[in-house]
Amino acid sequence: MRIAILGSGNMGSALGHLFASVGHVVAYSFSRDPKKLERLAKSSGPRARAASPADAARDADVIVLTVLWQHVPRVLRSAGSLRGKVLIDCTNPLTPSDDALAVGHRTSGAEIVARRARGAHVVKAFNTTPAELLRAGVNVLPEQPAACYCGDDVRAKRVTARLIRQLGFEPVNCGALTSARYLEPLAMLVGELAYNQGRRPEVGLRVLRPGRCRARRARR
Amino acid sequence: MRIAILGSGNMGSALGHLFASVGHVVAYSFSRDPKKLERLAKSSGPRARAASPADAARDADVIVLTVLWQHVPRVLRSAGSLRGKVLIDCTNPLTPSDDALAVGHRTSGAEIVARRARGAHVVKAFNTTPAELLRAGVNVLPEQPAACYCGDDVRAKRVTARLIRQLGFEPVNCGALTSARYLEPLAMLVGELAYNQGRRPEVGLRVLRPGRCRARRARR
Repeated sequence: MRIAILGSGNMGSALGHLFASVGHVVAYSFSRDPKKLERLAKSSGPRARAASPADAARDADVIVLTVLWQHVPRVLRSAGSLRGKVLIDCTNPLTPSDDALAVGHRTSGAEIVARRARGAHVVKAFNTTPAELLRAGVNVLPEQPAACYCGDDVRAKRVTARLIRQLGFEPVNCGALTSARYLEPLAMLVGELAYNQGRRPEVGLRVLRPGRCRARRARR
Repeated sequence: MRIAILGSGNMGSALGHLFASVGHVVAYSFSRDPKKLERLAKSSGPRARAASPADAARDADVIVLTVLWQHVPRVLRSAGSLRGKVLIDCTNPLTPSDDALAVGHRTSGAEIVARRARGAHVVKAFNTTPAELLRAGVNVLPEQPAACYCGDDVRAKRVTARLIRQLGFEPVNCGALTSARYLEPLAMLVGELAYNQGRRPEVGLRVLRPGRCRARRARR
């Protein structure tokens, strides 16, 4: 697939690398430093390039939104029409001080993104996954972690679930896009566990259900 | 320990049974039907009794709050002073229609409970655990599930973590009581996974961190 990364910081670069490494064509965009985009593209191999948001988005099948919350309106304006495209929203709507959600409870960042990106099929995903875990790889964890996703368009969710699986995570369908009202606070909880309650930020989640085989514990 | 259950519905009765089964002295309270409390106490064995909220709370070490959100003010008034006691808040602040949180984002049910129960050491816990999982027991799941808890009092959190462990869950410290702003939306997410996205409601969560042994998967 052709994947446009809007926002090439910690999350965008980690996701871009991974998507390129499993064979997707990746375009990095939206950095203050165009040279950084070039370096990023180079380090991701021959299937990656640097582009403007509009260039990246134009021929992309999937748009991956990873900018800081305050840049969402600007990057979506720059990207132009995203009608009919799958838009994976990985953002968390943080306040400028970065320690609380700017919106929540009766709305969510994802719902605001969906209103701004008219006609795009928005799926919330990867917002609960620390960039450090993406960089380190899921194999640093003792078991396969989940990646929660939610959205209103069945096809867009299916595409997202496939991408999630390709990156080594177990896709967990969390229902409609309004479930982002739960997934964005969950990202804050993961942040608390990753940065305040443990020594390493590579924290993963797993959803347990009855009826699967009990994973045997390794002996000490 | 002497444990007062305020609210003897699905959650209260499941928790009371479990606490009695591991040796605690349990008092069930707050039901429209006093006979139900008697039956509950009987079925939980010789260490359980039925009581009024004030009676139950008076000599309890730990108060377990499991009433419906709209009954919180009334049950806390009935219970009398809870100063110095450990109060485990298992509630979720649902709207009367039961499908959304009545409060969130910049506050939480737990913070409201803490303001009402003056002097009590409030810990949020078990609100993300379906009552069905408590009734079925953690062994229906393929691995040990986590029980997230948060609070501002170190001793109260330690007591809660010990109780969590006794019930077979792995206690996961989620920081200060303000983290209830994340744990209450997480309960809604678990509800979505338990009742809308799967066939059985006994859903558990697990927090994965690097550096533990990889649990071997059972062969198919």
